[in-house]
Amino acid sequence: MRNPLSDTIVNVKPSGIRKFFDLVSEMKDAISLGVGEPDFDTPWHIRDEGIYSLEKGRTFYTSNAGLKELKEEIAAYLKRRIHVEYDPVHEILVTVGGSEGIDIAMRAMLNPGDEVLIPQPSYVSYEPCAVLAGGKPVIIELKEENEFRLTAEELLESITEKTKLLVLPFPNNPTGAIMEREDLEKIARVIVEKDIFVLSDEIYSELSYKGEHVSVTSLPGMRERTILINGFSKAYAMTGWRLGYACGPKEIIEQMFKIHQFAIMCAPTTSQYAAVEALKNGDGDVEKMREAYDQRRRYLMHAFREMGLRCFEPYGAFYVFPCIKEFGMTSEEFANRFLAEEKVAVVPGTAFGDCGEGFLRISYAYSLENLKIALERLQRFVDRLREEQNGAGHGV
Amino acid sequence: MRNPLSDTIVNVKPSGIRKFFDLVSEMKDAISLGVGEPDFDTPWHIRDEGIYSLEKGRTFYTSNAGLKELKEEIAAYLKRRIHVEYDPVHEILVTVGGSEGIDIAMRAMLNPGDEVLIPQPSYVSYEPCAVLAGGKPVIIELKEENEFRLTAEELLESITEKTKLLVLPFPNNPTGAIMEREDLEKIARVIVEKDIFVLSDEIYSELSYKGEHVSVTSLPGMRERTILINGFSKAYAMTGWRLGYACGPKEIIEQMFKIHQFAIMCAPTTSQYAAVEALKNGDGDVEKMREAYDQRRRYLMHAFREMGLRCFEPYGAFYVFPCIKEFGMTSEEFANRFLAEEKVAVVPGTAFGDCGEGFLRISYAYSLENLKIALERLQRFVDRLREEQNGAGHGV
Repeated sequence: MRNPLSDTIVNVKPSGIRKFFDLVSEMKDAISLGVGEPDFDTPWHIRDEGIYSLEKGRTFYTSNAGLKELKEEIAAYLKRRIHVEYDPVHEILVTVGGSEGIDIAMRAMLNPGDEVLIPQPSYVSYEPCAVLAGGKPVIIELKEENEFRLTAEELLESITEKTKLLVLPFPNNPTGAIMEREDLEKIARVIVEKDIFVLSDEIYSELSYKGEHVSVTSLPGMRERTILINGFSKAYAMTGWRLGYACGPKEIIEQMFKIHQFAIMCAPTTSQYAAVEALKNGDGDVEKMREAYDQRRRYLMHAFREMGLRCFEPYGAFYVFPCIKEFGMTSEEFANRFLAEEKVAVVPGTAFGDCGEGFLRISYAYSLENLKIALERLQRFVDRLREEQNGAGHGV
Repeated sequence: MRNPLSDTIVNVKPSGIRKFFDLVSEMKDAISLGVGEPDFDTPWHIRDEGIYSLEKGRTFYTSNAGLKELKEEIAAYLKRRIHVEYDPVHEILVTVGGSEGIDIAMRAMLNPGDEVLIPQPSYVSYEPCAVLAGGKPVIIELKEENEFRLTAEELLESITEKTKLLVLPFPNNPTGAIMEREDLEKIARVIVEKDIFVLSDEIYSELSYKGEHVSVTSLPGMRERTILINGFSKAYAMTGWRLGYACGPKEIIEQMFKIHQFAIMCAPTTSQYAAVEALKNGDGDVEKMREAYDQRRRYLMHAFREMGLRCFEPYGAFYVFPCIKEFGMTSEEFANRFLAEEKVAVVPGTAFGDCGEGFLRISYAYSLENLKIALERLQRFVDRLREEQNGAGHGV
């Protein structure tokens, strides 16, 4: 029998995030700080709206692009939060999570060989989606000394004649890095001058702990060359509902719409009704969860300082990204030993790009109680590693 | 500003189904027989399970490939209904409707230039999904005289050195055609001999009105070269839940899994819990809806005979596909005039391929009451057209 597979897909590596995850689910008393998912249930009034729509028998397809009312609420939300106006009829597409938006934006925009700039460490989907769409990923290695922000210099150095698209993944998973207005203004100038497009993944936009989140699309000249990706998973603790949206210039959304229409049909109906409620009456929930995350973030940063573990202060998402280079082992070795010896799962930085080597992603989408236990175990583990190093040092 | 778009997507035409649809929603007293969606609400016990899962706070991601329990129920269902065993761990992937399964199967299997055989008239997604995956669609025009079944001769004629995949869309949308065991056996021999693969879209498998549905994957030598697509939309009236599945050999499902993991993450959680209930306790609902559809199908066929409208008898899905060639106008002209003059929306056969010219897709996923009104209008319209023809004839 001949080979049934596409050459392209065979060369795509599966995500490295889930491995530790599967290990930890089989381990007794293990604590996971591995998952990139809010620990909160979806707020009750939002779930209640989903329940109501099921009771009412709203179990049919919606329009391909999403419920009219939902798209109008999304437009109102974006105007309120990032001060950019999108036409709900032609410039907003409701998708299956942010994930689908990323995939179909690449498919709608890339020609074979087009270069896609992907700053790393970053979320695991960008690179394979670019490859599957026929593009050529070009990695920009973000630096700890820049707090893992993208600088105009780094951007400029990576642009060639073939560059078509820049992925802008801020607030960032896994580093927690944000881009502030001045950071964005500097790179926006380069983007306009070099005439490239931006895929701005702002799924963590509501989880910013240093002033208001600034969207690149709000800067001069950027709205017309930006596809904005956002959704309900992180802000409203709605991961399982699989609901997101993409906004951008009509001519691009129109093409993304066609792929969505053929490959997906429409986003889940119950989720769309619930999302209308989230946007109408969910601001308070978002605020409450943001405060809880921020408390945990400050607690973790304090604990790292106490144990002398280097970590730049992240102001976004729900991750910290401490440096473990002092221990002279790879991120994967560290994560493996930490799990085996202390039963705590964290994700090696390398799951998010080679330049994540020497770092760990620790999620604080976990209760303070669990975080405290995990940090006690981390303290013990770090102490032991330092003893081993000193022991080895004495021995030489 | 440079062109932001992919050349491939720009050349893909949007679906032709939705046009009449949008027209009809703005027209007073109009009746639509246009939509390919059950008119039943999802059965209450299935909705109730979705509600329960929301009440319980099951609002998180599931495993990428789907809930273990759901995959086990799918395996049990397939064993019970089509007598084929699939390993729930490695050979079943839960998707966002059947649509996602079609898209990611093509993406996982096609190399640039691989030919994909697509029998038409058929569902609108196959051709664009093949194009987007880099494949080359090769259309097989099915014939009314064969009751729109695919024959071994037609298949053989279309196979070249570059043929990789055959789409097998039975029971068929829009024709309502089915393939019986002997039909499938004949083409299975060709498939094995020519060493090609099959994407068998069996989303209408539960809506068969002539004996038990036979899946091509149950025939000798076919399981190892078939991706089976099915889902909950049609059988359980669960369109808005967006839930389907793909089954096949481990090596192919493994690659589809990667695309699914990166581009979608997981199917909606609430829908997955509801689907478990559908498979466990939904057989009676499926049976009841099948009987209702069958009654309408027979009613329509009887009415067509009465008005002398040619239509082969379809035994699957919920469509009839009458021939309107006698009126000397295109399908689109007929549909436009029928809507304008009698306020009934049907879909021109050409929305499903050029060879649909001269036919109409009429859905009977509508109440008998509505069907009766629509048929009275059709009778009136057909009478008028025949008078016009006679008048024109006399005038010459």
